[in-house]
Amino acid sequence: MTIGILGGGQLGRMLAQAAYPFGVRVRCFDPDPAASAGHVSQLVVGNYNDELALKEFSDGLDVVTYEFENVPVETIAYLEKTLKVYPSREALEIGQDRLKEKMFFKELGIPIAETRSAESAEEYFAAIRDLGYPVVVKTRRFGYDGKGQYLLKNERESRKVWEELRRSRVVLEQYIPFDGELSLLTVRSRSGSMAFYPLIRNNHREGILRMSRVPAAAGDLQSLAEQYAQSMMERLEYVGVFAIEFFQHDGKLLANEMAPRVHNSGHWTIEGAVTSQFENHIRAILDYPLGATAVQGSVTMVNLIGRLPDLNGILAIPDVHLHLYGKSPRKNRKIGHITIVAGDDLSMESKLTEVLNNIGHHE
Amino acid sequence: MTIGILGGGQLGRMLAQAAYPFGVRVRCFDPDPAASAGHVSQLVVGNYNDELALKEFSDGLDVVTYEFENVPVETIAYLEKTLKVYPSREALEIGQDRLKEKMFFKELGIPIAETRSAESAEEYFAAIRDLGYPVVVKTRRFGYDGKGQYLLKNERESRKVWEELRRSRVVLEQYIPFDGELSLLTVRSRSGSMAFYPLIRNNHREGILRMSRVPAAAGDLQSLAEQYAQSMMERLEYVGVFAIEFFQHDGKLLANEMAPRVHNSGHWTIEGAVTSQFENHIRAILDYPLGATAVQGSVTMVNLIGRLPDLNGILAIPDVHLHLYGKSPRKNRKIGHITIVAGDDLSMESKLTEVLNNIGHHE
Repeated sequence: MTIGILGGGQLGRMLAQAAYPFGVRVRCFDPDPAASAGHVSQLVVGNYNDELALKEFSDGLDVVTYEFENVPVETIAYLEKTLKVYPSREALEIGQDRLKEKMFFKELGIPIAETRSAESAEEYFAAIRDLGYPVVVKTRRFGYDGKGQYLLKNERESRKVWEELRRSRVVLEQYIPFDGELSLLTVRSRSGSMAFYPLIRNNHREGILRMSRVPAAAGDLQSLAEQYAQSMMERLEYVGVFAIEFFQHDGKLLANEMAPRVHNSGHWTIEGAVTSQFENHIRAILDYPLGATAVQGSVTMVNLIGRLPDLNGILAIPDVHLHLYGKSPRKNRKIGHITIVAGDDLSMESKLTEVLNNIGHHE
Repeated sequence: MTIGILGGGQLGRMLAQAAYPFGVRVRCFDPDPAASAGHVSQLVVGNYNDELALKEFSDGLDVVTYEFENVPVETIAYLEKTLKVYPSREALEIGQDRLKEKMFFKELGIPIAETRSAESAEEYFAAIRDLGYPVVVKTRRFGYDGKGQYLLKNERESRKVWEELRRSRVVLEQYIPFDGELSLLTVRSRSGSMAFYPLIRNNHREGILRMSRVPAAAGDLQSLAEQYAQSMMERLEYVGVFAIEFFQHDGKLLANEMAPRVHNSGHWTIEGAVTSQFENHIRAILDYPLGATAVQGSVTMVNLIGRLPDLNGILAIPDVHLHLYGKSPRKNRKIGHITIVAGDDLSMESKLTEVLNNIGHHE
């Protein structure tokens, strides 16, 4: 049995690591011959529209998944001719377009921030007048880690950003002065069973996820978030891990984004949950029963961004788990993460302080 | 950074999986092109005396280790000319010869069953007269999983086994009607720091490990076992994970065997300890601080031997972790293991019963 993964980044790498205990082989596909997942699995190098490379990739595979939501839909359509691909093409199409995403949330009655789309200067400036400053503008496609995303505070900034973005279609959103950022990771198997991880509390800076913590102490919001997720997964006949990012605002949840894949905010599940998001994704696409999603104690995940910490210092802290992705350090690049597992919040605080001091990363 | 592993079996496979979170690459060496570890890492195929293949294997490596104690000492000597190899050649030499092993235990004052060696029929029958029936006879070399090992109950059996073994040098041991089989897994880093896992209670059948459980409820024996292990590791300037198997007899420990490598009785550490034996072996050979070895609750590992269980049934049991090695099933072949983690012994019993019923493996 061989599993194919489109995309060879760290998510593909950790999916491969989670797949091996099932006795399967893993083959990734990536345009970059140095792709991180290629260090730990077979790797076929090619562009996503290169049929010859895709043929080589798909030869002998039993099932295909993806770790990257910017895989062209045409690539999935091509592979679907001969193979099962999970999650569905529809989920990917929605996940790669911020406007479709917002419309999908609305269609299912899931609250979102007030949103407009714009394809012309007229529509853009009209939307800003409607929504008022501050306002968030995002390109509809190819955004991640804060790329293609701006917070506009005045007329001058809106003009400048429009100049930058003029060839892009954009969405504009009312700025939410949120009380917190939460994400829900869920998983649905081929046979339709579902499992939900506890809500995760996230911190972003410059649009990049810095830290994720569970439990999120979000009270009633857990069941509300699960209800939203269930309606989305059922509507899409979704298979695999599915992530939704929310703003917590005024006691409510506003859906911000979705990702049809394993998600950075769920990396803590490797050591912090009974079954990791990566293993549950593999179980889902292989049609095995899903694993338990309970959190074990108090868990914090800290991203390693741009540079390596002092590894001897980090590894000397008990209950700290290091994950490096084999990527060379570069500004704003995620090169690894650290998971801290503690029995309670108090011992978490002291370990977390030690970790943050070590990596010179203070929030 | 690339780690080389001599041997491409499941131990190499699980070492590779534990190495990847350190951002390193892994290359295994095995005579079998289908070697299990080759599914998850680079694999160089060759015989252990094939210098050309060893050259290809060693090219660009940063450090070498082994997962198999029958690697010829000459292979290690060859690689040591250009590379650091851990654990030391001396540990391997002792570990692959049952007589040297026994002499090493004795030299350090570690109790063992009464033992004789024999290279001739005269010595063999004299030893049996000395020790009395029942008596255990083992070939000095290449024994594992009960191979090359016999329990003799009478004259007729001793003659028959001597006919089979006449070309081998053997050791004969007084039979110990033990109260239990325990193993201790320990690890020592390049800088000399040490860590000890809790004693493990093991069940063998037909010389093959079936089940390992922690905590072993062995009382005072933990500190005694640690003292024995420490003297051995210090004497060998040992680097890596080291395993000692003991008989528990009459409130004492008798050392039975040692293994200069990660060990089947420690597979439970992947989910059941803060740091797995595989990760600690990698930390040790890379000279990182060792990770915590505490057990988390009540943990049982069950080997999958000879045939695959019903995977859907197994994966539906909560807190059960499956590990398949990608090996095709064959009589008496270890093809995977299952780890069960429970909060306490009571909930362990019900889960374990479910697992054993599922795999049709009753003890």
